[in-house]
Amino acid sequence: MSAPTRSMDAPRAIRIHPSDTVAIVVNDGGLPAGATLPDGPSLREAVPQGHKVALIDHAPGDAIRRYDVTIGYAAEPLPAGSWINEHRTTMPEAPGLTGLPMATVKAPEVAPLQGRTFDGYRNADGTVGTRNLLAITTTVQCVSGIVGHAAQRIRAELLPRYPNVDGVVALEHTYGCGVAIDATDAAIPIRTLRNISQNPNFGGAVMTVSLGCEKLQPERLFPELEIPDLVRFQDNTGFEAIIRSLMETAEAHLERLNRRTREACPVSDLTVGMQCGGSDAFSGVTANPAVGIASDMIVRAGGTVMFSENTEVRDGIAQLTARAASPEVAAEIIRELGWYDAYLERGGVDRSANTSPGNKKGGLSNIVEKAMGSIVKSGSAPIAAVIPPGERARVKGLNFAATPASDFICGTLQLAAGATCHVFTTGRGTPYSLEALPTLKLSTRSDLARRWHDLIDLDAGPVATGEATLKEMGERLFDLILDTASGRRTWAERHGTHNALALFNPAPVT
Amino acid sequence: MSAPTRSMDAPRAIRIHPSDTVAIVVNDGGLPAGATLPDGPSLREAVPQGHKVALIDHAPGDAIRRYDVTIGYAAEPLPAGSWINEHRTTMPEAPGLTGLPMATVKAPEVAPLQGRTFDGYRNADGTVGTRNLLAITTTVQCVSGIVGHAAQRIRAELLPRYPNVDGVVALEHTYGCGVAIDATDAAIPIRTLRNISQNPNFGGAVMTVSLGCEKLQPERLFPELEIPDLVRFQDNTGFEAIIRSLMETAEAHLERLNRRTREACPVSDLTVGMQCGGSDAFSGVTANPAVGIASDMIVRAGGTVMFSENTEVRDGIAQLTARAASPEVAAEIIRELGWYDAYLERGGVDRSANTSPGNKKGGLSNIVEKAMGSIVKSGSAPIAAVIPPGERARVKGLNFAATPASDFICGTLQLAAGATCHVFTTGRGTPYSLEALPTLKLSTRSDLARRWHDLIDLDAGPVATGEATLKEMGERLFDLILDTASGRRTWAERHGTHNALALFNPAPVT
Ligand SMILES: [Ca+2]
Ligand SMILES: [Ca+2]
Ligand SMILES: [Ca+2]
Ligand SMILES: [Ca+2]
Ligand SMILES: [Ca+2]
Repeated sequence: MSAPTRSMDAPRAIRIHPSDTVAIVVNDGGLPAGATLPDGPSLREAVPQGHKVALIDHAPGDAIRRYDVTIGYAAEPLPAGSWINEHRTTMPEAPGLTGLPMATVKAPEVAPLQGRTFDGYRNADGTVGTRNLLAITTTVQCVSGIVGHAAQRIRAELLPRYPNVDGVVALEHTYGCGVAIDATDAAIPIRTLRNISQNPNFGGAVMTVSLGCEKLQPERLFPELEIPDLVRFQDNTGFEAIIRSLMETAEAHLERLNRRTREACPVSDLTVGMQCGGSDAFSGVTANPAVGIASDMIVRAGGTVMFSENTEVRDGIAQLTARAASPEVAAEIIRELGWYDAYLERGGVDRSANTSPGNKKGGLSNIVEKAMGSIVKSGSAPIAAVIPPGERARVKGLNFAATPASDFICGTLQLAAGATCHVFTTGRGTPYSLEALPTLKLSTRSDLARRWHDLIDLDAGPVATGEATLKEMGERLFDLILDTASGRRTWAERHGTHNALALFNPAPVT
Repeated sequence: MSAPTRSMDAPRAIRIHPSDTVAIVVNDGGLPAGATLPDGPSLREAVPQGHKVALIDHAPGDAIRRYDVTIGYAAEPLPAGSWINEHRTTMPEAPGLTGLPMATVKAPEVAPLQGRTFDGYRNADGTVGTRNLLAITTTVQCVSGIVGHAAQRIRAELLPRYPNVDGVVALEHTYGCGVAIDATDAAIPIRTLRNISQNPNFGGAVMTVSLGCEKLQPERLFPELEIPDLVRFQDNTGFEAIIRSLMETAEAHLERLNRRTREACPVSDLTVGMQCGGSDAFSGVTANPAVGIASDMIVRAGGTVMFSENTEVRDGIAQLTARAASPEVAAEIIRELGWYDAYLERGGVDRSANTSPGNKKGGLSNIVEKAMGSIVKSGSAPIAAVIPPGERARVKGLNFAATPASDFICGTLQLAAGATCHVFTTGRGTPYSLEALPTLKLSTRSDLARRWHDLIDLDAGPVATGEATLKEMGERLFDLILDTASGRRTWAERHGTHNALALFNPAPVT
């Protein structure tokens, strides 16, 4: 509701969009009958926490709207103040891939956001990084043990002499040999690796490490690029010689990277990947909508935003195709999600999501409503383009990067797509972060932020307690993104911890 | 040939089994017409290095035998001293899964090998480890970054006070959430993790780390086990508290592990996993047959040996089913390799292997011959049992552990099956090793062993130069396995480098 009271005990509910006909009760323990929402109706009956309350009168058949979309229809009269749950509504069918609205939503009229900048590292190709990292690309898992060992020595022995370099990232993975490298789907992990190596945070130069006899030869990984500074283990005379070669090559890179400095760059040079993981009933109510507001601000400023997670957005596909900037983009959304349906089916998994008993208890009466809680991270901008898994973003504005929902695989694919900053919302709490780009963690509730005081970078909980509006929280996140892109360190960066990359390989191993 | 000359320049050829009708020329550059093999015929024509020469006269239709199996038939008269290649032989069809010989080979009569022991760590359940390692099991990738960080601190700050503990192994992986955990094939990665945690090298006690909200809950990972010393991140108040909890739990384990000492154990307490990777034309001629001889010695001494690598043995399936100890074991071999055929086909990969032009140039005229070069690592014992991927070995003697050929996935699955020592042959050279068990690397030729003097643990090249017989090399390897099992460190252990585990997950990610 607009202008929520700041009291902790007053009845509170959150409406995501002005056109929504329902709001979500956020008070601990829910609200009793007779409680009056600020600027809203009095409750006709008790409504549990996280559940929907009608803000207007619904006649049977009237649309129930949340996240600015129709999530179902009233099955009986549902006057303002009613508890709206799955027993009182009719559900849409799990959506197929035909008959979808194609680019039917008119782009909202928004003023450009001007004058905001961040301090980034500009690369020769015009891209801008938020960190100045030495990356070591590997063609095959065989070399990872020794590369990791060398990276530790580079950090300990060389890095202190190059203070302008933020870190050393060994791009280790489990691909490159022992895989069906000529299978059609092998294109995905290979282009993922290629594009990660070109992420703007690595200064536009790859240091490549190869074994020698692997299936994924350096020339196959980088068919159109020169491969400078290649270290091939089988060309070296043993362990000590390999380590020496890695250290020398790294030092040449460090010298070059160390000459770079940050400069003021417009937000249009920024690429941010949005994700959620360890969700709870408040993910779609506090943190994710705040991310959507920050996303809209970045897009208004000319920047690039990605949202992802196929299995989570799949049941909201009609909203995605409707918001596509053109029928062609809508068709690409259908193609990617259809491909993923087939991938799951091939593996014996029924893709049709169903709200679980836990979801319903948490207030999600509907698979579309559940998907919208994830999609809301994308804000309200038109979907300008679709990024197939492993490809790079080529269009500014809002992109749908079609990836699995797995935090690590999604993050790895967003890194390949060119993300230089990562925003991650969590309800249950996860320490997830990647090493190659700053990973901001947002909590959905304040108790998690208090408990994990040295892991959570921003608390969206004040939206639930009424201490901040969604708009205020979105603006706070936008500011934090720019500060972080300019060098402010996340908690994970301060601790020096990160998770490993996880390549998406839909093809068989051999 | 028996009693090869010790000169470097004399004609040399290797016959794997006394019943073989061909031998392989091993001299650099091959041998010219007229060269006389020791105890063998004179060459009727030039034979390239790695290629076959007839040791006896073959009439058209006569079986050509190598590795003690028929690898093809003479298509024309092939008298002793002839070059035998794919143009002069008829090839068997790529084998199907029906009409295979079931347990038809009579087990060779061998004397038990008695009196040999190694110094191992005996566990409460009767198993014996070759190392005394603190292992930290994880239920989900989310915790890996912080667990890896804690493991480094445990190594630096705690381990020096517990000198009887050999190391700290964080069992990190990319499984546990964001996966189709109810898919049929999900049983494989889950049981793999469960069984790895019970590897004898970890002293029979698991320290388990969980996030809290992951799909793979500790109770699901260990349904029949007590879960002691569980650290659950979401129960802790932030990063510093999590680290403190991990360090305290680890210290209690280290105290217990530190009280263990090595004791003399019979070879029947040893479980060795055999593998090859980065193969060359000599893999099936020097290193792999030497592994087969060591394998036979371990089996004769009552120990357990595993060989693996589905895609490499698939075309030799008839030899595997024939060597099965019973028709039931033969049927299990067919079931596992048939399952793998279907897995590859599902992923759009045609399983039928074909010898490549490179293989033929290297002397492998036939897919069965190629497979036998890998299978020869298993020696000549009957195949006592089959281990499905992720399961534990339950029978002593020779086991077929049905795994992909990928070095890391195969090694990870052999670790789950209970291997406490790993033997790895390589022709091209790879630094592969795992942290959880000593990984002995054998080179197929001496030039690799010279070049990689501080990575290769044993050189099988003297078999090619005539400086050692296969029998001598097999015995040398057997001795080195026992020494290594008793605590002798491999090169990789001395350098402190290792490769990451790679779980086999045939089910989709989500
Ligand atoms: Ca998510
Ligand atoms: Ca996710
Ligand atoms: Ca192999
Ligand atoms: Ca292998
Ligand atoms: Ca090792």
